[in-house]
Amino acid sequence: MIVYLTRREHFNAAHKLWVDKWSEEKNFEIFGKCANKNFHGHNYDLQVTVKGTPDPLTGFIMDAKKLSNILKEKVCNVLDHTNMNLDDNFLPKGILATTENLVYYIWQEIEPHLDENCQLHSVKLYETRNIWAEYFGE
Amino acid sequence: MIVYLTRREHFNAAHKLWVDKWSEEKNFEIFGKCANKNFHGHNYDLQVTVKGTPDPLTGFIMDAKKLSNILKEKVCNVLDHTNMNLDDNFLPKGILATTENLVYYIWQEIEPHLDENCQLHSVKLYETRNIWAEYFGE
Amino acid sequence: MIVYLTRREHFNAAHKLWVDKWSEEKNFEIFGKCANKNFHGHNYDLQVTVKGTPDPLTGFIMDAKKLSNILKEKVCNVLDHTNMNLDDNFLPKGILATTENLVYYIWQEIEPHLDENCQLHSVKLYETRNIWAEYFGE
Amino acid sequence: MIVYLTRREHFNAAHKLWVDKWSEEKNFEIFGKCANKNFHGHNYDLQVTVKGTPDPLTGFIMDAKKLSNILKEKVCNVLDHTNMNLDDNFLPKGILATTENLVYYIWQEIEPHLDENCQLHSVKLYETRNIWAEYFGE
Amino acid sequence: MIVYLTRREHFNAAHKLWVDKWSEEKNFEIFGKCANKNFHGHNYDLQVTVKGTPDPLTGFIMDAKKLSNILKEKVCNVLDHTNMNLDDNFLPKGILATTENLVYYIWQEIEPHLDENCQLHSVKLYETRNIWAEYFGE
Amino acid sequence: MIVYLTRREHFNAAHKLWVDKWSEEKNFEIFGKCANKNFHGHNYDLQVTVKGTPDPLTGFIMDAKKLSNILKEKVCNVLDHTNMNLDDNFLPKGILATTENLVYYIWQEIEPHLDENCQLHSVKLYETRNIWAEYFGE
Repeated sequence: MIVYLTRREHFNAAHKLWVDKWSEEKNFEIFGKCANKNFHGHNYDLQVTVKGTPDPLTGFIMDAKKLSNILKEKVCNVLDHTNMNLDDNFLPKGILATTENLVYYIWQEIEPHLDENCQLHSVKLYETRNIWAEYFGE
Repeated sequence: MIVYLTRREHFNAAHKLWVDKWSEEKNFEIFGKCANKNFHGHNYDLQVTVKGTPDPLTGFIMDAKKLSNILKEKVCNVLDHTNMNLDDNFLPKGILATTENLVYYIWQEIEPHLDENCQLHSVKLYETRNIWAEYFGE
Repeated sequence: MIVYLTRREHFNAAHKLWVDKWSEEKNFEIFGKCANKNFHGHNYDLQVTVKGTPDPLTGFIMDAKKLSNILKEKVCNVLDHTNMNLDDNFLPKGILATTENLVYYIWQEIEPHLDENCQLHSVKLYETRNIWAEYFGE
Repeated sequence: MIVYLTRREHFNAAHKLWVDKWSEEKNFEIFGKCANKNFHGHNYDLQVTVKGTPDPLTGFIMDAKKLSNILKEKVCNVLDHTNMNLDDNFLPKGILATTENLVYYIWQEIEPHLDENCQLHSVKLYETRNIWAEYFGE
Repeated sequence: MIVYLTRREHFNAAHKLWVDKWSEEKNFEIFGKCANKNFHGHNYDLQVTVKGTPDPLTGFIMDAKKLSNILKEKVCNVLDHTNMNLDDNFLPKGILATTENLVYYIWQEIEPHLDENCQLHSVKLYETRNIWAEYFGE
Repeated sequence: MIVYLTRREHFNAAHKLWVDKWSEEKNFEIFGKCANKNFHGHNYDLQVTVKGTPDPLTGFIMDAKKLSNILKEKVCNVLDHTNMNLDDNFLPKGILATTENLVYYIWQEIEPHLDENCQLHSVKLYETRNIWAEYFGE
């Protein structure tokens, strides 16, 4: 009996999409207004799903409060109210803060800290109500 | 051609998380304020997905109205405006009403009543906007 | 220049609607399933609006973080994960925890703690996505 | 490293559910008020997911703006502010505009136009907040 | 002590915007694709607010269930799954089913049926997530 | 007969809260993480309400499409994907981009462009799901 549990958290951050080795012209051709010089920002909505067998006594796969604390400590507190291009965080240098890249690197931050009896299933990140990415660890 | 159809329903219920054979101290250590003596409650949002091949004439996998009626009769009418710890329902005695346990037992209630030509795919239950569980029958 | 600022908070609580001096029959006639003996519960969504003139330097009517802290301390921490019929809170004895009554008594709790240069404008409380009440202090 | 990217779009359309070769009585028995003669309508919410490996430089699976343009051109502009029973569109004659059928035929419209390095993963369509269908191409 | 209570209901309907005495050209100039011949449709979200003094015993301005029943009987059951241009309803002939007109005529339908001790405060109608109208009876 | 019509639009922007003539210490004391050096950002949700008497023929107070175009041209296109501290826009120099200030200055931008027969009623701006401001022109 495998059950999936999801916890939602939030962070607000600035970013821009810009490849240094490209010309300004090429950056705007590829990224449009997302390349604007002085950054823009989003309210990010993070949804992380773990899976496992509920404990017979507690009915928990993993304490949702503990999962929330991991997400806050490892991801939200690191990115919230920051500029993902300029401030230090877990994104390697040169890796753009697209939603596609973010879900992959957020997975790496969270995965080592989960309870032994449950597995990380997916990391989903909404950049706006109209665009989101999800990563399943593969 | 397999299509997935989801129907959403609601119920509002009280519960608390409490293991009888544990001390009060241990219950609060594990469950925090969810162990408060006099219960608390939630607006539960239930999303049940079935899968099958649409009928060539009706374009239906299963009449969504019929699915809605099964969810109401077997789940929502049983749990709505009840206390899931004290009132009779389909949870076995001693099984706590966590979202993880609820999705498993809701599956058992719904699965025998679906149309023959479609299968239950998942039961998803939101306890709040920030926590939900899903069960896929495995 | 008067601007209105709203802050949203949440609490989850159990309640039932029951008038002690009425018969069981009359209680169910008036309150329906809301009178069920063992309580039910909701995810309450609280939206409190203050009004005032933004400070020329900070652009704040009132620090939204401070407003949030007042709402948490005076309302959410008092009601969250409680039973509004059985647990001690700011509702006078015998006053039912309907949304209509709650917005009035929440107003009384919050109003004395706001900054001097801003006024409480409204207290709005969602019991479900389909029912909410609002009080403007009159 | 496979990441899933979703883009949401909208269209508003009229339809009714009606099988010509059935009697009026049978149509109402099967479809209820969805068979009403003069049509009704919905705000449709379309969510299309593609999967692929983010480009090392751009961090994109596929430009979300390009995906949005495909969805608008091939689906939303065709169906928006139309009657899906009477107006010309990509639904074959005699195929009813149920959500189950729509997700299948929307898949056929979108799939040939995606970038080579990414695959269509799913087409999800909300007819209301309470009913939606999803198709994964199988 | 005046409290405002809101109840939300839904209906799905087809309509088009078209003035008979205008040319096709003028209709499209004024109404754009809303003038399309074969209609389109929406999921309408209706929010009706009443105001009054909560009853000291029940804590109710007006039973929200009774308010819901009035909205269903007088408005939703009349308009749901209909074509607001072609089917009989409470809109006078020649009055277009814009959200602005609908809130005015819905007010007229509801107002005579409310409890004596409470007043209709507003009728709000969402046509989409991006457009809505409200009428306060003046 | 006065009806209120609301149109919702969006923009995504970066900002920080920082008063130049204050010390870093005082800025962080007043603004907390909103003062972080490299900015952060939000998905802003703008809701603008106009009021007037519906035209007897069109049922319109004002064409919602025209209202949408004014909001896009005067506000969203100016602020979207910009840094409200660094980029040129309609905020006077030294005025911080708090939601309270934004609703006031957005009002000034929109008000002169509305149709003669309708009035601007309110400008509401959501910075997050939990904080928003509204201005009524007084």
